[in-house]
Amino acid sequence: MRTALVIGTGLIGTSAALALKARGVAVHLVDHDPDRAATAAALGAGTDAPPEGRVDLAVVAVPPAHVAASVAAAMRAGAARAYVDVASVKGGPRRELTQLGLDLTAYIGTHPMSGKERSGPFAASGDLFEGRPWVLTPTRDTDTEVLNLALELVALCRAVPVVMDADAHDRAVALVSHTPQLISSMVAARLREADETAVRLCGQGIRDVTRIAASDPRMWVEILSANPGPVADVLAGVAADLDGTVRALRALDSADEAKRAEGASGIEDVLRRGNAGRERVPGKHGAGVPTAYEVVGVLISDRPGELARIFADAERAGVNVEDVRIEHATGQQAGLVQLYVEPSAAAGLSEALRERGWALRP
Amino acid sequence: MRTALVIGTGLIGTSAALALKARGVAVHLVDHDPDRAATAAALGAGTDAPPEGRVDLAVVAVPPAHVAASVAAAMRAGAARAYVDVASVKGGPRRELTQLGLDLTAYIGTHPMSGKERSGPFAASGDLFEGRPWVLTPTRDTDTEVLNLALELVALCRAVPVVMDADAHDRAVALVSHTPQLISSMVAARLREADETAVRLCGQGIRDVTRIAASDPRMWVEILSANPGPVADVLAGVAADLDGTVRALRALDSADEAKRAEGASGIEDVLRRGNAGRERVPGKHGAGVPTAYEVVGVLISDRPGELARIFADAERAGVNVEDVRIEHATGQQAGLVQLYVEPSAAAGLSEALRERGWALRP
Repeated sequence: MRTALVIGTGLIGTSAALALKARGVAVHLVDHDPDRAATAAALGAGTDAPPEGRVDLAVVAVPPAHVAASVAAAMRAGAARAYVDVASVKGGPRRELTQLGLDLTAYIGTHPMSGKERSGPFAASGDLFEGRPWVLTPTRDTDTEVLNLALELVALCRAVPVVMDADAHDRAVALVSHTPQLISSMVAARLREADETAVRLCGQGIRDVTRIAASDPRMWVEILSANPGPVADVLAGVAADLDGTVRALRALDSADEAKRAEGASGIEDVLRRGNAGRERVPGKHGAGVPTAYEVVGVLISDRPGELARIFADAERAGVNVEDVRIEHATGQQAGLVQLYVEPSAAAGLSEALRERGWALRP
Repeated sequence: MRTALVIGTGLIGTSAALALKARGVAVHLVDHDPDRAATAAALGAGTDAPPEGRVDLAVVAVPPAHVAASVAAAMRAGAARAYVDVASVKGGPRRELTQLGLDLTAYIGTHPMSGKERSGPFAASGDLFEGRPWVLTPTRDTDTEVLNLALELVALCRAVPVVMDADAHDRAVALVSHTPQLISSMVAARLREADETAVRLCGQGIRDVTRIAASDPRMWVEILSANPGPVADVLAGVAADLDGTVRALRALDSADEAKRAEGASGIEDVLRRGNAGRERVPGKHGAGVPTAYEVVGVLISDRPGELARIFADAERAGVNVEDVRIEHATGQQAGLVQLYVEPSAAAGLSEALRERGWALRP
């Protein structure tokens, strides 16, 4: 790939442009707002001058609702040898393009899984995609050369290509991203009416479950509007579990012992299925953390450098810290640092930290 | 307080005994299993010999279902001047005690909010309660001297006393602890049937939402069995939101523009209520993290000492790291460390880390 045209210079478009530019591709930038394209160019993402003739790859980086029209316009202008979009849903745009009667051998829908709190070209970075999954949704009509150009884009952005069917992609993100967002918001919403004393009892569990409830509502309305069916299907499954769980809890509240036993077994069932599902979450925060690692708890003050000293002491002890959580307790300035380490390393680390004067909590 | 009797030498009982003993209280230990009391004594938590005469405080640390019988037996034996229990629910045990016709002026139900993955005396520690909320549920019948003995217990354990009504406590833990547990399990349960490719797309959001889904089902069945009504009530509120959200998503899927607008506004509403509820979660992981702190992302290898070096470099730059998350990317050994810092410190930290050779991701 020698030349590319990035259509839409928001966070994703500008980040891709920066990555391509850094690897020697001549990048042209265009946006419905010429100022934004000029900004991306000023940030070093390429030129906002139009390309002379056809480029190798057009990267359409516009919101889901505008993907089909943008791809169609670029195709009709003969702008590129290959066309990709990078929107967070894939089934809808493909169906719209098919309805427009376009030849889709030169098109692949893609989705780089790189979230970000901020948007726009100023938030962009050439390493946004590094090590992240980048979904590609070729069909059997896709030209091999087009697939290879898309794979080259992913490689130049140092992402990890994952090939999926477009509709399977939409169901997958409904499951692993869109549903957790809505459920987190619903649990957090329950806290609105809680009294101050109840809120003081919040621990690490509810903190983690509601962390993403702080996300931007407008961005999420856009995302969910483009994928409502698959998300509703997953939520319907949660709703069925929820109804069953409420019934089990009511049975647990009964005076009848057989009913109570039935309720307990219903509750245990959903908790066990939760264990099994959690096992499938990959990564350090996945199934490994609570079971495979031991936690060493260290009490710290809020002075700068406490963490640096803990980690330096852990290194001195020859222990690799696999994960860490920091928690501040109600009514105290002091915090608790939870170090996740291999079980075989826990006792040695505890001893080493105690020797160096740290107060531990098991 | 000079003498105490701890009834039940599991994690909580033994931890309280260790704390009391460390502050000079003569502690007697008893358990339905004499070996367990002997173990706690061997760990330095006190003596398993019976007290000579009445102690100042009896701490009943048995599972919720056995609290009333244990407190009643101790009271009938005239074992102490004051009686507390430390079970995770408070309304049921109090009602059972009232039904037994006991004089409850000498009793206070309490609940130290100190969770733990492991149980039993070996997991115990004298600093288990440090800085944690410890709920006390006195009534207007409670003798002031009894309340003061309970407050002394909390102070000696270095916990933070929080006074609540017993039923308000049970509703509060239903909201901030029991409901998040069940919901986390239900979201995780959806992953059981997901195909391998879908699971590869899991990011930090679903990792956090499902972390506590790895909890021990048996322990949770016990906890939930003691508090089914309040948990069912909170879940019913979530269920109503869930039904509304599924309806809003189906409306978003409609061809009718007015319906779609209505659906979008329903989705935005639940997301905004989630924002508002999340704002109420206290602590460093609370509302502060996503909005008040900036995140500096640093790519690391899996070699030991990488974290120590990052934190040492952050300290050298004079920056206090407020929180940290570690994430490993699909198909890569390298990980991403997210450092949460005050917004004013982010740019300086990024520059300092870059200068010291770290690869950053914004």
